[in-house]
Amino acid sequence: MADIQTIPPRSGAGFTLDRGQTLTVIDPQGRQVSDLLAFNRSDMREAISSGRTLDYANRLYLTTGDMLYSNRSNVMLAIIADDVGRHDFLLTPCSKETFAIIYGDTDPHRGCFGNLVEALAPWGIEPDQIPVAFNCFMNVPIDGATGAFTVEPPLSKLGDSIVFRAEMDLVIGLTACSALQSNGGSFKPIQYRID
Amino acid sequence: MADIQTIPPRSGAGFTLDRGQTLTVIDPQGRQVSDLLAFNRSDMREAISSGRTLDYANRLYLTTGDMLYSNRSNVMLAIIADDVGRHDFLLTPCSKETFAIIYGDTDPHRGCFGNLVEALAPWGIEPDQIPVAFNCFMNVPIDGATGAFTVEPPLSKLGDSIVFRAEMDLVIGLTACSALQSNGGSFKPIQYRID
Repeated sequence: MADIQTIPPRSGAGFTLDRGQTLTVIDPQGRQVSDLLAFNRSDMREAISSGRTLDYANRLYLTTGDMLYSNRSNVMLAIIADDVGRHDFLLTPCSKETFAIIYGDTDPHRGCFGNLVEALAPWGIEPDQIPVAFNCFMNVPIDGATGAFTVEPPLSKLGDSIVFRAEMDLVIGLTACSALQSNGGSFKPIQYRID
Repeated sequence: MADIQTIPPRSGAGFTLDRGQTLTVIDPQGRQVSDLLAFNRSDMREAISSGRTLDYANRLYLTTGDMLYSNRSNVMLAIIADDVGRHDFLLTPCSKETFAIIYGDTDPHRGCFGNLVEALAPWGIEPDQIPVAFNCFMNVPIDGATGAFTVEPPLSKLGDSIVFRAEMDLVIGLTACSALQSNGGSFKPIQYRID
């Protein structure tokens, strides 16, 4: 079994994942969110797409058996195991602007957005190429009648994980989320393992 | 009052909209969807963002008073009037792949995606830059408990419209949607007016 890597609180990591490898994203303490991005390693203009994925799934809450599609409608990742069953694929990574607009911070943190920009820069990804992330463990319950939603503490417990299998050679961006609202009010690490 | 332009069934249009101008999107026969995209005319890498917009609205169903944000968290368009109150901002424009995967078509239409690519090509937009569109009149009811959704006929009636005010100089892509499911089973035109 491969080594477990730790992403410190409010930071991010970039790494490659080969077709057929699995990525296990672990919430070591519970109630922490991890934003996941995927790009086609042979053409980084092909990126994970919430719109394509949701359209093909006909469901907002994805779990074991669901596929994550690219903007070109190719399968990038398959979810092959999931302890939690509640993740978000609606909202963009938190950013300086998120903290200014939603939290009213006067000296806002760069957020998952800034952490992903830094983590993906070695592969030539520009900030404007950062799409909606697959937000592992993020809990966004929706009122079906009004469409209103709230961001609630994750349902993940200590050691819970979600496992993805790569269906193409990928570059992955992964964070330990920087937004208090997403994480039940405290910043915690995220762990991952590649097998 | 400006001339009304007609977008024929299963086609699209590209045009500019100056800051302060209004765009009225009209459903002339009722129960037809129109996919809307917006790009910053002075830097086309800045594009309409479902993820940013939904995050700031805390609501999936947008209507009068709501703002449509870019991937840089700037307001691109304000919704200033709306006869319908039900639009979708989850799903990508229908495409060749949509028709192949969802409808099983063997000779699939290029869809709103192909129509938007053609309509926006004069401004140098590449296919991979087409994001999730604001889908005027598209009716996607959601089961809050499971997150499951369906695509139902629009609630728009003959002559209903939605009006946007441009908050920056924009390039707009607009379609008369090509997907049977979105339109209650028949392909119809869309009209628009710039004032």
